[in-house]
Amino acid sequence: MPPLVVDIHTHVYPPAYMQMLRARKSIPYVHDPAEATPRLIILSSDDDPSIPIDQRGRPVDASYSDINVKLAFMRRHAINCSVISLANPWLDFLEPQEAQTWAERINDDLEATCARVNHAADPDHSKALHEKETLFAFGALPLSAPSPAIVVSEIRRLKTLPHLRGVIMGTTGLGKGLDDGRLDPVWGALQDTGSMLFLHPHYGLPDEAFGGPDAMNRYGHVLPLALGFPLETTIAVTRMLLAGVFDRFPRLKILLAHSGGTLPFLAGRIESCILHERKFTANGGEVPGPQRSVWDVLNTNIYLDAVVYSTAGLKAAVTAAGGADRLLFGTDHPFFPPLGNDDEEWPSVTTNYKAIHAAFDADGDTAAGVLGGNAARILDLK
Amino acid sequence: MPPLVVDIHTHVYPPAYMQMLRARKSIPYVHDPAEATPRLIILSSDDDPSIPIDQRGRPVDASYSDINVKLAFMRRHAINCSVISLANPWLDFLEPQEAQTWAERINDDLEATCARVNHAADPDHSKALHEKETLFAFGALPLSAPSPAIVVSEIRRLKTLPHLRGVIMGTTGLGKGLDDGRLDPVWGALQDTGSMLFLHPHYGLPDEAFGGPDAMNRYGHVLPLALGFPLETTIAVTRMLLAGVFDRFPRLKILLAHSGGTLPFLAGRIESCILHERKFTANGGEVPGPQRSVWDVLNTNIYLDAVVYSTAGLKAAVTAAGGADRLLFGTDHPFFPPLGNDDEEWPSVTTNYKAIHAAFDADGDTAAGVLGGNAARILDLK
Repeated sequence: MPPLVVDIHTHVYPPAYMQMLRARKSIPYVHDPAEATPRLIILSSDDDPSIPIDQRGRPVDASYSDINVKLAFMRRHAINCSVISLANPWLDFLEPQEAQTWAERINDDLEATCARVNHAADPDHSKALHEKETLFAFGALPLSAPSPAIVVSEIRRLKTLPHLRGVIMGTTGLGKGLDDGRLDPVWGALQDTGSMLFLHPHYGLPDEAFGGPDAMNRYGHVLPLALGFPLETTIAVTRMLLAGVFDRFPRLKILLAHSGGTLPFLAGRIESCILHERKFTANGGEVPGPQRSVWDVLNTNIYLDAVVYSTAGLKAAVTAAGGADRLLFGTDHPFFPPLGNDDEEWPSVTTNYKAIHAAFDADGDTAAGVLGGNAARILDLK
Repeated sequence: MPPLVVDIHTHVYPPAYMQMLRARKSIPYVHDPAEATPRLIILSSDDDPSIPIDQRGRPVDASYSDINVKLAFMRRHAINCSVISLANPWLDFLEPQEAQTWAERINDDLEATCARVNHAADPDHSKALHEKETLFAFGALPLSAPSPAIVVSEIRRLKTLPHLRGVIMGTTGLGKGLDDGRLDPVWGALQDTGSMLFLHPHYGLPDEAFGGPDAMNRYGHVLPLALGFPLETTIAVTRMLLAGVFDRFPRLKILLAHSGGTLPFLAGRIESCILHERKFTANGGEVPGPQRSVWDVLNTNIYLDAVVYSTAGLKAAVTAAGGADRLLFGTDHPFFPPLGNDDEEWPSVTTNYKAIHAAFDADGDTAAGVLGGNAARILDLK
């Protein structure tokens, strides 16, 4: 029997969302001329007037919005179950008055899609998870809404939707980052409802961090995607830690994209810098500083996907997290498709499969947990 | 017999350099009032007019410039041999006409210090390395000099100084980063002379990457030091790789501070993003892109210190580098001193010792290599 495989990092842009992007002229937007391949332009570094508009961003095809293409991708890669999420930049950019409506629309659409697919796969609920093709979802939040209470309300509503298993969020929160005290009601609602928070990057780093636009343009998307994304995630979760979010909400559950950005590798340095920071009260300073150690948070609150493309990364993730039981397979579909036309399997996916097998070769149970068992247990998939 | 321990990451600010910093009023500078502890202000985020000048930066004591304090630190931590290097920001900030003079002055001073200490420890050259207390050095480069030829000349001169074992360099190069084609003569000279290049961060990331100055100030030095430094190193070496530096100089030897910043963890993602970059000729684009894989460079050109404060980090480093034979113990002295007065040992050092023993517990030879054997072999210390 092939093992259960659950993909917890897989994105969709539902048709209604794509339609909204087509009507926009600033990021995020879709350029969709009748005579050429549509382009998805979501990164600020891509919206460069010196680049012809039909070459900006990336080509966008049905894999972004057609759930049947997602299901075919799952079959090709032996994935039984996907926990789909709205892709970046989610609803971050919406006008305040639109946010709640769009969050409800997107989340209801995700629920309906999961319900339809799961019913078709197992109409009488007789099959086990590894015997069928199923979808669950992380919901989107109306973070630009006029009040955090609207966000809290949507978090509570998501718990009433049978196929929703938490939320996906970027790193800006209510606009000032995830160490913003105004987010406390949001953290409280996530903790109280036991909802998983999938933290995902989008904004990267300022161009100057990479030597300015010229240096960035030389290398296409490599710097912002390979480095900007994981560094953004690392900074965001470290600011949460430093601001005491995990002290105030010790049962918060947070799934970090791309195996934590770089958190597993830098956790020791972060902890050392905290212990040596003169500004914190533990060292005679005036600022409280975090009360719980980085390691405690990594072993209690943090879940990591296995989207790190190497055995080296997985070993750091497992060691930092104190074990592999909170490490979860993912693909990042529909991003990083093969560039040739004839590829049956996606190298971006097989690289992660191979890394998992290489890292846990001696222990088939551990690999099976990472591939699907952990996700089924943690997210109550059935 | 206790094992040989070599510290390859340990900094000095020679007295003449400190004197120069005392005469300056903008970063880098030393504020040294008669009635209070002097302060070293080197990071742009520390030079904030809203902070009283006697609280800016960090307190600076004799550990920064007195070699006898360094030797006492070595004894206390069972270190036999230190490869000392000028601390950041090195000579990056000098006016063009001053650079060569200062480089020669600093490097001659380093050579004289090593010669004096080593002669005192073993006047008749009868002892093995693990039986005595010795110093070697990485030289500083006049990178702001009017011509790269002056840098090349100093690299060649360093080979004539008996205790110099390579150079230390920041991430700005000649002012435009390490992917600047004007650096090719410098890379060529380093390769041709077989000199090790110790790549070290200083500039961190723009404040906006951390949420702006307010967010940064809340947490003291944690964000710029714990994250800014390693992310800067990662970006710098990735830009070298993307610009084909390791294709053009396949025998370049580069030692990355802080176990590569985050390179071991992100190597897989970087490689995947390169393989999926439409801009590169391999995928039909117009830019050559790197010809050698990240893994090949990690296994051939790159050396990593073991200053990562965790077993998780070390496991990633060793796995990414294809073994522990290019992993080298270091302390980062005089930075991260204990904040209490009574500490005998520095926790920042013992944390790294413990991590090495935990990572290589089953293999004493590997731990011994990391602690000193690798450095002695690679840098020809005797």
